[in-house]
Amino acid sequence: MSTSNLDAVFNPRSIAIVGVSTKAGPSQLGGNGYLDAMMRCGFKGQLYPVNPRGGEMRGLTVYPSVRDIPGPVDYVISSIPAAGALQLTNDCAAKGVKAIHFFTSGFSELGQPEGIQLEKDVLAVARQYGIRVIGPNCMGVYCPGSGISFLADLCNESGPVGAICQSGGNAIYVAREAARRGVRFSKVVSYGNASDVNETDLMEYMADDPDTRIIMAYIEGVKDGFRFKKALERAARRKPVIMLKVGTSESGARAAASHTGSLAGADKVWEGLLHQVNAVRVHTIEEWIDMAVTFSFFKKPMGRKVALLGLGGGATVLAGDEANNEGLEIPGFPEEMRRRTAGLLGSEAGTIINNPMDLSAQAWAVGYYPVLKVFSEYRDIDFSIVHFSVGLIARPPELHEEIWDKLVDDVVRGYRDFGKPVVVVIQMVTFPEHYDWLVHAREKCYRAGIPVYNSIRHAARSTIRFERYSRRNRELAARNG
Amino acid sequence: MSTSNLDAVFNPRSIAIVGVSTKAGPSQLGGNGYLDAMMRCGFKGQLYPVNPRGGEMRGLTVYPSVRDIPGPVDYVISSIPAAGALQLTNDCAAKGVKAIHFFTSGFSELGQPEGIQLEKDVLAVARQYGIRVIGPNCMGVYCPGSGISFLADLCNESGPVGAICQSGGNAIYVAREAARRGVRFSKVVSYGNASDVNETDLMEYMADDPDTRIIMAYIEGVKDGFRFKKALERAARRKPVIMLKVGTSESGARAAASHTGSLAGADKVWEGLLHQVNAVRVHTIEEWIDMAVTFSFFKKPMGRKVALLGLGGGATVLAGDEANNEGLEIPGFPEEMRRRTAGLLGSEAGTIINNPMDLSAQAWAVGYYPVLKVFSEYRDIDFSIVHFSVGLIARPPELHEEIWDKLVDDVVRGYRDFGKPVVVVIQMVTFPEHYDWLVHAREKCYRAGIPVYNSIRHAARSTIRFERYSRRNRELAARNG
Repeated sequence: MSTSNLDAVFNPRSIAIVGVSTKAGPSQLGGNGYLDAMMRCGFKGQLYPVNPRGGEMRGLTVYPSVRDIPGPVDYVISSIPAAGALQLTNDCAAKGVKAIHFFTSGFSELGQPEGIQLEKDVLAVARQYGIRVIGPNCMGVYCPGSGISFLADLCNESGPVGAICQSGGNAIYVAREAARRGVRFSKVVSYGNASDVNETDLMEYMADDPDTRIIMAYIEGVKDGFRFKKALERAARRKPVIMLKVGTSESGARAAASHTGSLAGADKVWEGLLHQVNAVRVHTIEEWIDMAVTFSFFKKPMGRKVALLGLGGGATVLAGDEANNEGLEIPGFPEEMRRRTAGLLGSEAGTIINNPMDLSAQAWAVGYYPVLKVFSEYRDIDFSIVHFSVGLIARPPELHEEIWDKLVDDVVRGYRDFGKPVVVVIQMVTFPEHYDWLVHAREKCYRAGIPVYNSIRHAARSTIRFERYSRRNRELAARNG
Repeated sequence: MSTSNLDAVFNPRSIAIVGVSTKAGPSQLGGNGYLDAMMRCGFKGQLYPVNPRGGEMRGLTVYPSVRDIPGPVDYVISSIPAAGALQLTNDCAAKGVKAIHFFTSGFSELGQPEGIQLEKDVLAVARQYGIRVIGPNCMGVYCPGSGISFLADLCNESGPVGAICQSGGNAIYVAREAARRGVRFSKVVSYGNASDVNETDLMEYMADDPDTRIIMAYIEGVKDGFRFKKALERAARRKPVIMLKVGTSESGARAAASHTGSLAGADKVWEGLLHQVNAVRVHTIEEWIDMAVTFSFFKKPMGRKVALLGLGGGATVLAGDEANNEGLEIPGFPEEMRRRTAGLLGSEAGTIINNPMDLSAQAWAVGYYPVLKVFSEYRDIDFSIVHFSVGLIARPPELHEEIWDKLVDDVVRGYRDFGKPVVVVIQMVTFPEHYDWLVHAREKCYRAGIPVYNSIRHAARSTIRFERYSRRNRELAARNG
């Protein structure tokens, strides 16, 4: 089986959505939510809503059953109660459907004999007719290149990141939040109970998928350790794999067992395996997204020597500590470079003309552009971190934006003109107005090719992981000839 | 010297603000900013704006010089350029002023002979006339009980936390951000170059201050290690001291030296000292605020056994891992308790009826109130963490608020009715609308006596630090008889 027919999931000619309601409001969870999501995401093929009562919605005919649909149906999304799943599978078999996604829960994850049996029965029919099953108990597929989405609010642009994410909630979060940091997806798959399509199938598929350059994986447990190990090894040889392995604690494993019926496996085994294949291991969902950002924006290996630039003495001291504690090198600037920078600013009060650097009040007059120019000409610096501590400036928030906007624009111009890698950190958000600004500033940066992180710590940790990954990758490549 | 005349800083009968502008717009940094801040904070004494050109502003007479002010002046805030500082100090001496705060920078922190000499000269005059000096190069004092503030947007309510914070930017941030998490301050002091009033004076003052129950300290370096150690020991015996010691890395120390001319000191020495006196050491500004939240809301010692409750299977698995990895205990619930909870919910699909617990879709119908009731009757649980992962729900943000609001209200009611400690975590914020909601939800919680954190990790780390502090405090008390 493995990856056969999975293409029908990502590139179907037509989709039937079973369990819509002609009466419910917009964006209701379930069938209507999927229908709206596909329409908003621009699905080009045929869309067939299905409800026993028939009727019409969103300008489309509602069919009483999958069997009643006139044209061929490649892919079916089911949001009807679990009790109807077996009948639906039989209908799909009769119709020649290639893949079914069961959004509905109420199967093996309950830990009751009935649910376990039902899941088995559905799978038996599916296997007999060569139908692939996604789920049950999951969000399914987001594949913007094909116009497939599980939520109407997701980004329509596609990109190089493929995410394997057992959990539906986390798949939603990553699709939204990573997109707001400039990550674009080839596909995100939430596969829930993994009755058929599982982490190994998806890892194999992503490894071969020409649209996927970076693989993210959130794994609660694996069905077949030996096969997964082989798939992971193969994938990691070809592309960066960012792994959030959860259920590693006793209580996390307990939750994973009830959530998707997964056996989490010993943490030490995972640690060893991930190190061996040079997959990047992360421990929180924020770090997981951080690494997707990092691999999306940094395409060439990069060292650990950083110049830190920001506004505010206290923030600068903290930045120096945090970057250093994570393992970055922050070389002091030589006399000549300090003189050049001081010359730009006038050697006025309140500035820290060294590394880390604080321009304080002079930042507003001089801007970051000429400073980044000085940095770019200094060979002992691999990249810069520019941090925006928007909560510590002594002005009310309504006066912030013009100042911060100018500095962000300077960073964008500086990166464009000088080409040396720059990382932006936006932290210390306090007012809702700050958060609005953060969302817009992030977008400005990532559209210009600059990655943005939420703290110095996260930026430092991510660039170090990237450096370590790249170095080890070269070593492994050399060793394997 | 030590704490003499410091009362004039926190409880002045009158304040002169030197360096206002009758022409500048509202909330300009500097003199006008201070004037507006005092008026907004409700300072009850006399306010005297000072500018050589005289005139009138905000309904107040502007005096050409401190000497021209008719009544007595206790406290002077200077935002004139450093060059005028010595003349001003002489004027203050003639007027019988008790304390001056120099907001202006341009003194010893520049590392140039002129600035160092100027700071010495000012101090010599001040010492001769018994005037205390705050700064230079700092934000000065926020003391809402006396109507003193360094920013017009700070909270007017006072409370039990005293913060010693060398850095002005970080003082601003902590005053704003901690307030939005329910922390109320007796006073916050940013003391910059510490030419006169320094960390030791303030530590001694806070230790004795009846309005201060909890001490926060952000320290770049200390002037007199021996005296500081004694002051810290004494303070920590009386009250919790939360210490953010920065400049502990080479680059952080370099920044601290330029920022406030501080020598940071060896990290190991600090580590030993802080452990010895049972001060709570933190490493980031967020952790610093977290502990102020924790000590503000938890007044009795508390154990490590927690019940985790939230929405979303993936979020629940991650919560279990993170709480466990930080060191909390998450005991599995006994059969009887699981049956009771399942009875509340119906044993429907998608819920995790154990610890950690996920109510999934049923949460909206059943709510958290009855679940917290079950938790409250279970002795093997010391407290609960209820987490709101607002970014992972499959509804567009405009439909979120009613759901989340109901659940927050349930937590508030549950805490009020059952009395067992509850901690709220609001994480996975993605949309600006989420952030707005977060700010309001936090306020609802802290007004009801419930602390709020930004992640499971931070909540767990904070409660563990609190437990460790309380335990060690009892041991030390027992040992010292």
